[in-house]
Amino acid sequence: MPLVQIDLDRSLAERLGEQISDGIHQALVDGLGMDPTDKFQIFRTHAPGEIVFDPGYNGVDRRQLVSIQILMVHMYDVTTKYAMFDQIAKRLEEIGIRPDDLLISIVENGFEDWYAGKSRS
Amino acid sequence: MPLVQIDLDRSLAERLGEQISDGIHQALVDGLGMDPTDKFQIFRTHAPGEIVFDPGYNGVDRRQLVSIQILMVHMYDVTTKYAMFDQIAKRLEEIGIRPDDLLISIVENGFEDWYAGKSRS
Amino acid sequence: MPLVQIDLDRSLAERLGEQISDGIHQALVDGLGMDPTDKFQIFRTHAPGEIVFDPGYNGVDRRQLVSIQILMVHMYDVTTKYAMFDQIAKRLEEIGIRPDDLLISIVENGFEDWYAGKSRS
Repeated sequence: MPLVQIDLDRSLAERLGEQISDGIHQALVDGLGMDPTDKFQIFRTHAPGEIVFDPGYNGVDRRQLVSIQILMVHMYDVTTKYAMFDQIAKRLEEIGIRPDDLLISIVENGFEDWYAGKSRS
Repeated sequence: MPLVQIDLDRSLAERLGEQISDGIHQALVDGLGMDPTDKFQIFRTHAPGEIVFDPGYNGVDRRQLVSIQILMVHMYDVTTKYAMFDQIAKRLEEIGIRPDDLLISIVENGFEDWYAGKSRS
Repeated sequence: MPLVQIDLDRSLAERLGEQISDGIHQALVDGLGMDPTDKFQIFRTHAPGEIVFDPGYNGVDRRQLVSIQILMVHMYDVTTKYAMFDQIAKRLEEIGIRPDDLLISIVENGFEDWYAGKSRS
């Protein structure tokens, strides 16, 4: 039950929202070995000026910012997380979103911290 | 100081926003034993297509998605968390929101991670 | 790579958004010793009724709510966090936002939980 929260420019969401959704989802399936039906994404679209960033931090050439926050259970090792990052970057690059423009962050919780339509029994 | 973040369809928020707010709040008071004045909620409303989900994941019949993220201090045991989930599901069902349509997630932090109008002294 | 997420009234964002951005950023630079180019902020603006709060919780006089969520690596001690809170409150008070109206919350993750334009090598 990862919950994926994407903050991006409204114009980008209108142009590529569906492909971004598909790309991130496939990356989680491939990178984490996630069940393909385990899909929860929230897109938050923004007017100019609402997403603020430095163009050069971390030695990249950042022209816009697509923030992808992933809330997921604490169960993946570092290698798996990096594989997921690389999968996301690769999938989104295929549809024209530069890796430099991505900010991906992970927050972890426990199995007992989710209710997905019913209680765990 | 739980902070409750609700992402839902704009049309649902317009129709039932106030009742959803009251229902979730009462559930936290009852389920966590929370101080009734400890109320911080942010509603983020969405256009069609911004909330993406699989209709059948986890063996439920999901028709829309109401995401409720709760950021709270790490101090509640599993039983208490499940009681809170059940309270939220019950309260929202009373106003016509199906438990199947809920995605509730908890993120935890510490007492020192909050500033609510003033520093802790 | 703190990621700062600000939820506030749309009218306040229109009036003071840029100054709020600058004030919070400077507070993180001063309070955490953060690299000035390490700037990632997302503003989420809200219509009346979308931000719900109790006016008196925690013994303050709350008239509106500006929620500032900071996702950052687990590496700062309590004293540093409180210094950051105080810096944010001071900077925003200088532009007319009352400390009583702030809700600041911290969520922590690890170094391996970030991808900022490229993988860590």
